[in-house]
This record gives sequence, C-alpha cells and structure tokens, in this order.
Amino acid sequence: MKQAIVARTDIGMGTGKLAAQVAHASLSAVEKTEKSARSEWKGSGQKKVVLKGDGERTLFELAELADREGIPNAIVRDAGHTQLEPGTVTTLAVGPAADDRVDRVTGDLPLY
Amino acid sequence: MKQAIVARTDIGMGTGKLAAQVAHASLSAVEKTEKSARSEWKGSGQKKVVLKGDGERTLFELAELADREGIPNAIVRDAGHTQLEPGTVTTLAVGPAADDRVDRVTGDLPLY
Repeated sequence: MKQAIVARTDIGMGTGKLAAQVAHASLSAVEKTEKSARSEWKGSGQKKVVLKGDGERTLFELAELADREGIPNAIVRDAGHTQLEPGTVTTLAVGPAADDRVDRVTGDLPLY
Repeated sequence: MKQAIVARTDIGMGTGKLAAQVAHASLSAVEKTEKSARSEWKGSGQKKVVLKGDGERTLFELAELADREGIPNAIVRDAGHTQLEPGTVTTLAVGPAADDRVDRVTGDLPLY
C-alpha cells in the first residue's frame, strides 16, 4: 500500500509551501479512502512518495486516470494567500491503494 | 484555526522527503484532534504552516509544550528506507487548534 503525491515543478513553490500543499493533498485523498484500505495503509507505515509533475494538465490527466482505475484521489488548489495566484493547482494525491495500482497511474513520474 | 508543522533543518532532507514527512506528521496530529476542532479547521480551509526546527531536541521540547497546552501533536520518526537512519526524528505537527494557541508553542520559529 502506498500513496503518491504529485507536486508541480513549474510554479516555483518554495519548500515549505510545497510541503504544506503535499500534506493538504495527502489528507484530502485519505479522507476519500475506504476505512479498510486506510487502516491497511496506516498499519503498514503509511508509505508516501512525492513525485514531480510538470504542469496543471499532467495533474488533471493523472486524476482522470486514477478515477478510471477507481483509486481515491484529490487535487489541491492553493488559497493564494502567499506566493501563488488564488486557485492555482499545486498537488494531486493518488491513493492510498495497492502499490501496483498506484503505479499504473503515477509510475512514470520521477521522485521529487 | 491552523496547524503548524516543524521540520528539522539539520538532517539534510531533500524536498520530496521533507514534504512526505510533513504530510505524515500532519495526518497523525489531525487524527489525535477532536472531531469538532477538526471540522472547524477543515471548514476554514485547513490552514497549515511549515516551520524550521534546528534539531531533535527542539522538536521534543515543543511537543512537551504542546502537551502542557493541551494541543494535539505528533512527532514523526522516519522508517529509514532512504536518506536517513531508521528512527530519525524528522517532523512535529502541532494542532489544528486556534491560531493563538498554536503560536504559544511554535510562534518563535521561522517559516520554512
């Protein structure tokens, strides 16, 4: 079981900003996950990988793919108080789900 | 309402690693938070700030302070599959709680 979180590389987020947006996406996708899958993921150490996505379009395409695979996912838009324009898409979390299912969606992306 | 997540600056975490550890701490502290406070935080946009902590000792001291203030908090130790020694303390999440309560614990730390 793992969760993959894709963060955009093309909008110049600072490290702290990026980490907050990753956490936001992670939590949102976990909340959409069935209790049994959630428990299994937590029990196995709640593995997370953070991956690079090259733009907004990539995140939306991967979210659609996750939907088609039936994997819980969540896209985050920044509230825009700092650094970014309000509504900027920043991150996408996919899973938690079985590793091979998550890899079918995000397996081609490089680690952040 | 906000949640502050303190990440160590002294252990050379890469950006993706740091973001994953921040997400882990965030989720763990949210799970310790009472449902009403959790809902209030989410309803107001689940504000998160990521802050710099200069070492393990700082994180433990802040966790103790949060305990004394009655604020939910969670320290994360890395499983150590990559980059860090197993068991390395990486992050501390404080809250969600009212902004002024969180600031009593982490208000002196710089933004990451």
